[in-house]
Amino acid sequence: MMSLLQASARSSVRAVTKNFYSTEMSKRVAVVLAGCGVFDGSEIHEASAILVHLSRGGASVNVFAPDVEQMHVVDHAKGEPTKERRNVLVESARLARGSIQDLSKLSVEDHDAIIFPGGFGAAKNLCTWAVQGKDCSVNGEVKAALEAFRGEGKPIGLCCIAPVLAAKVFPGCEVTVGLENDDKYPNTTDTAAAIKQLGCEHVSAPVSRSHVDRKNKLVTTCAFMCDAPIHEVFDGIGSMVQDVLKLA
Amino acid sequence: MMSLLQASARSSVRAVTKNFYSTEMSKRVAVVLAGCGVFDGSEIHEASAILVHLSRGGASVNVFAPDVEQMHVVDHAKGEPTKERRNVLVESARLARGSIQDLSKLSVEDHDAIIFPGGFGAAKNLCTWAVQGKDCSVNGEVKAALEAFRGEGKPIGLCCIAPVLAAKVFPGCEVTVGLENDDKYPNTTDTAAAIKQLGCEHVSAPVSRSHVDRKNKLVTTCAFMCDAPIHEVFDGIGSMVQDVLKLA
Repeated sequence: MMSLLQASARSSVRAVTKNFYSTEMSKRVAVVLAGCGVFDGSEIHEASAILVHLSRGGASVNVFAPDVEQMHVVDHAKGEPTKERRNVLVESARLARGSIQDLSKLSVEDHDAIIFPGGFGAAKNLCTWAVQGKDCSVNGEVKAALEAFRGEGKPIGLCCIAPVLAAKVFPGCEVTVGLENDDKYPNTTDTAAAIKQLGCEHVSAPVSRSHVDRKNKLVTTCAFMCDAPIHEVFDGIGSMVQDVLKLA
Repeated sequence: MMSLLQASARSSVRAVTKNFYSTEMSKRVAVVLAGCGVFDGSEIHEASAILVHLSRGGASVNVFAPDVEQMHVVDHAKGEPTKERRNVLVESARLARGSIQDLSKLSVEDHDAIIFPGGFGAAKNLCTWAVQGKDCSVNGEVKAALEAFRGEGKPIGLCCIAPVLAAKVFPGCEVTVGLENDDKYPNTTDTAAAIKQLGCEHVSAPVSRSHVDRKNKLVTTCAFMCDAPIHEVFDGIGSMVQDVLKLA
């Protein structure tokens, strides 16, 4: 039975990923994941929305993740860490339907833009913001990718908590993580304060909007930093993706 | 550090799930998941699309999953089963951002409709179709839920491979799992043949459309049974969700 299912799973990887994202070939976009699940990985609905909007925009997409162990594994039903160990690349492959590459293989020449969804994984597995805030360190491959795309003048999209990656790597940049001093954005004010301490500008923007830092070609939107219905988060991410494709 | 993160995860469960799906209260819809990941659980993008379209339609949503062990765990990067063991309810909670209930607690009186996304989990954890085809058995709680909603004349939405659940439980019903004899729908012809052997009618329909069996109030669409770009799958699921809400 296992061999049957194993073969089935293998052939399915090929079948389902062949034309998964788009049959058109215009802008080539790298999407960087951090696991699969809001509390220890990439926020699933943000990642899915990014892929839907990129597909609708005619982009061709490659999905990447670092081949590292997750900071921890959270039982999402209980909201508590478990003793399990999981790999960021392997869990991210769930979101990519099997079609994923090691972030160490990412080539800036082969892509016109790069996008990072949020979720705690961005602050736990791509950097240590969840534990150290503004004093965090950023994963070396993530930092190299951010610097390479900016160095080539290629746009970078980030949502939810992921904009802190840009704030840490590019002092002086502009990002949004939502509306400050608004109950619907419970963690925005504190996060914005830390971003300002890094020498960056925090631009208050609602869940429906993205902010473009034209100098650094950064596009950010707050997504689930806002306590909003999921279709509003989906639409805000659509704004970010469209702005990234326009800049690419 | 762990206690800090544990507390953080706990408070986040509350914060992020409060107004997750919709602030309007019109149609009350139950969504039944089967894990998290196309090869051993619910297809992530189908489940996310269902939640986005329900939210946009003003529905209030409760997410459920059976509290059972997954048939197996597939490493989605390799496309091969691993030796791990995971629980369907716990993994489904990743898609539900922590806000999930045991399927055994589902009350048909409290809901106007029920929807099942696809992915191999529907054919591995909600029934045994992946191994036994038309001779499969259906999880008792899933079967009870399907019979209860149909008994009350409340609509049932299913996509991808999940329509086989209806075909098994309701002989004589009409469903679609895509276009027969079309290379873009590699598994539809064989699946349709098995559905017909169960005494049901298979209605060929493209990824963009949903089929409504008005007698049984079943709404089906093929989703990733078609080798289509993700935004086309998203739109086809939108058609299914809108038809379900109209019938509710």
